[in-house]
Amino acid sequence: MQSFIEEETKYQVIPFTWPKGYKSDGVHAGLRKNPEKKDMGWLYSEVPAQAAGTYTTNQFQAAPTKLTKQTINQDHQLQAMVMNTAVANSVTGEQGMIDALKMQALAAEKLGLPNEMVGVASTGLIGELLPMPTIAKGIEQLQLLDNGYVTEAVLTTDKHAKTITTQVEISGKTVTITGFCKGSGMIHPKMATMLGFVVTDAKIADGQLQTMLSQEVDSTFNQITVDGDTSTNDMVVTMANGLAGNEPIESDGGIDSQNFLEAYHAVLEELAQDIAADGEGSTKLVEVNVEGAATHTDAQKVAKAIVGSNLVKSAIFGEDANWGRIIAAIGQTNATVDVDHTSVWLNDLPLVKNSHSADFDEAEMKASLGNDKITILVDLNSGTATGQAWGCDLTYNYVRINATYRS
Amino acid sequence: MQSFIEEETKYQVIPFTWPKGYKSDGVHAGLRKNPEKKDMGWLYSEVPAQAAGTYTTNQFQAAPTKLTKQTINQDHQLQAMVMNTAVANSVTGEQGMIDALKMQALAAEKLGLPNEMVGVASTGLIGELLPMPTIAKGIEQLQLLDNGYVTEAVLTTDKHAKTITTQVEISGKTVTITGFCKGSGMIHPKMATMLGFVVTDAKIADGQLQTMLSQEVDSTFNQITVDGDTSTNDMVVTMANGLAGNEPIESDGGIDSQNFLEAYHAVLEELAQDIAADGEGSTKLVEVNVEGAATHTDAQKVAKAIVGSNLVKSAIFGEDANWGRIIAAIGQTNATVDVDHTSVWLNDLPLVKNSHSADFDEAEMKASLGNDKITILVDLNSGTATGQAWGCDLTYNYVRINATYRS
Repeated sequence: MQSFIEEETKYQVIPFTWPKGYKSDGVHAGLRKNPEKKDMGWLYSEVPAQAAGTYTTNQFQAAPTKLTKQTINQDHQLQAMVMNTAVANSVTGEQGMIDALKMQALAAEKLGLPNEMVGVASTGLIGELLPMPTIAKGIEQLQLLDNGYVTEAVLTTDKHAKTITTQVEISGKTVTITGFCKGSGMIHPKMATMLGFVVTDAKIADGQLQTMLSQEVDSTFNQITVDGDTSTNDMVVTMANGLAGNEPIESDGGIDSQNFLEAYHAVLEELAQDIAADGEGSTKLVEVNVEGAATHTDAQKVAKAIVGSNLVKSAIFGEDANWGRIIAAIGQTNATVDVDHTSVWLNDLPLVKNSHSADFDEAEMKASLGNDKITILVDLNSGTATGQAWGCDLTYNYVRINATYRS
Repeated sequence: MQSFIEEETKYQVIPFTWPKGYKSDGVHAGLRKNPEKKDMGWLYSEVPAQAAGTYTTNQFQAAPTKLTKQTINQDHQLQAMVMNTAVANSVTGEQGMIDALKMQALAAEKLGLPNEMVGVASTGLIGELLPMPTIAKGIEQLQLLDNGYVTEAVLTTDKHAKTITTQVEISGKTVTITGFCKGSGMIHPKMATMLGFVVTDAKIADGQLQTMLSQEVDSTFNQITVDGDTSTNDMVVTMANGLAGNEPIESDGGIDSQNFLEAYHAVLEELAQDIAADGEGSTKLVEVNVEGAATHTDAQKVAKAIVGSNLVKSAIFGEDANWGRIIAAIGQTNATVDVDHTSVWLNDLPLVKNSHSADFDEAEMKASLGNDKITILVDLNSGTATGQAWGCDLTYNYVRINATYRS
């Protein structure tokens, strides 16, 4: 019944490294009090890279998010990204946009680039202005190095940096794809914010990177939830500088694009899972796989409803095989569901069979719920489409983190 | 700025009483272990009453909910409702419907009514069959009395019974409206379930009660949330037996219908607020009033997004004036929002003015957040429409109740 079988893949996951032609750095500029913590970073490509982005749908979109979207949408080209943590520069009015433009200009000046080749990203407190002297000081300190410090410089309450590198052969050349992100946690938790960056040395056919990113984000980043709250600062930005020397990859379904997208998807999925697993206060990663759906959209919707349910999340924290909550979460969606023949497995153990209790062994199920990763498989018996989503449990610590921020 | 001013009302709230011609009872049949706890009840009208209902949209609709909907939809007439707590008779397949029909038939037989004049309602565990001998024993015990025991017999983990009675003059006659409900909590918490019952002796013009109920439920019960999870058993049923002797009330906006709807709305709103205030683990009732909206739908949507945000709910539990979360919750909706001129008040204190911090006094705000009721007022600066919603804070106890059910 477990149909999410690992298939042979063409790509390899390798230890963290930057693709050809990328330099970066991360420093402590002084935005955060702890001098051990990096709070500013940048990422630079030696040549102009094709760029694409996806951005929060929150109507109160932060100034840096707006600016980066405008910058990328001009001609889908970037050569650098500069970023900070601690202050989100969100809900900061006109001054917020002036500050984001200034941050962009300072980085561009130091790198000898036109402003429109530099994107900016901020995460942290909503409603506070960027302390521009500190930002300027940080940019002064940043160098073009081979280290991975920038992956630390975007973190807030994340427990660890989230990175992944994959490599894949494309037209006889080795293409490297590296991604990093920050998840849902903050120094002063004001909002769950998410930033993701994926860079590659692949050569992508003109104008195709945005299509690839948008498609893959839908089944990865857009399928995670920690608490149902959408940040004002979320963005995923991707750059492809072509230095791998491969033939340009078209998003046309050919073998090159299949192999590249497989490796690219693996990067996005790993980062998405890392964010879910490191959700505020979480103790367990929850993965939901849905099959037997009428459409992929239905499958995605059902998977996300289950990982988004506070009742399911609390039950998983309590290691309680409370299947009525999973069934109720499925039924809340408008997906096509065979309500008399829906089945559910938890860590491969049958939990619900044809909409009745599967008479599972309580002790075995309880033991299985002790795992750090909980996999829920749902068969809707309504078609052949599949979908996935990731989340985490709801814990005392989630409430504590978000209730006691000023204390 | 506080525009939700109390206007003079035509109705009066009076101590709990049944309207003319209603009898009821509640007993301990044995569904719950504690012999002190009532677990079955009924409600009876001496004459056939016009009836209307609204039902859960969860696709896994429980058997009693389905049966009551079918029964009412035949000719919008009922003369009795029989109900139980502890077992929800939900996700119980064909046997579940057989049991619901049997429960209906047993009550009808004892009352000397046709089956189609009796509705049934169940709440409690999902996935377990009703123990029919115990149900039969309960129906044997039930009498036609003037007590209010039925309002206790539907409770699960509710801290107290939720009732309200209003009276209003209609065409020279006193009309009484009494409502009761159960909220979100369970003996063995499997699902937040909600049942509401409103009975009146008013004479309502033929076929108009369903219109009135559907309209009022939209702005009351449908505007509360405890945890975003929709139960399989939710229903609100209303009966009007006409024994007050008033001229039939049309839902046409005339003065009689205005006065009746005002009193009727007050009953539904009070019950909805009671459910929110007594949400699982809650320590505070949260009321959100939205004004300056382009449409009523927008206002309702924004109000519900705020009371539904885990981050807002955690901040209120922590008594933290964390306005970035309120702004972010507003921005997550697709409502028309003036993102540069949105303002927020908390318990009448300015919190956000034109999308900037209102530079509030921290000590004063903190003291205000100590209240049991938190009122958030939002001005979207996009029109003249208003809306309201109610919820509660997210607490350690919510997680505990829903994580440790089997321990």
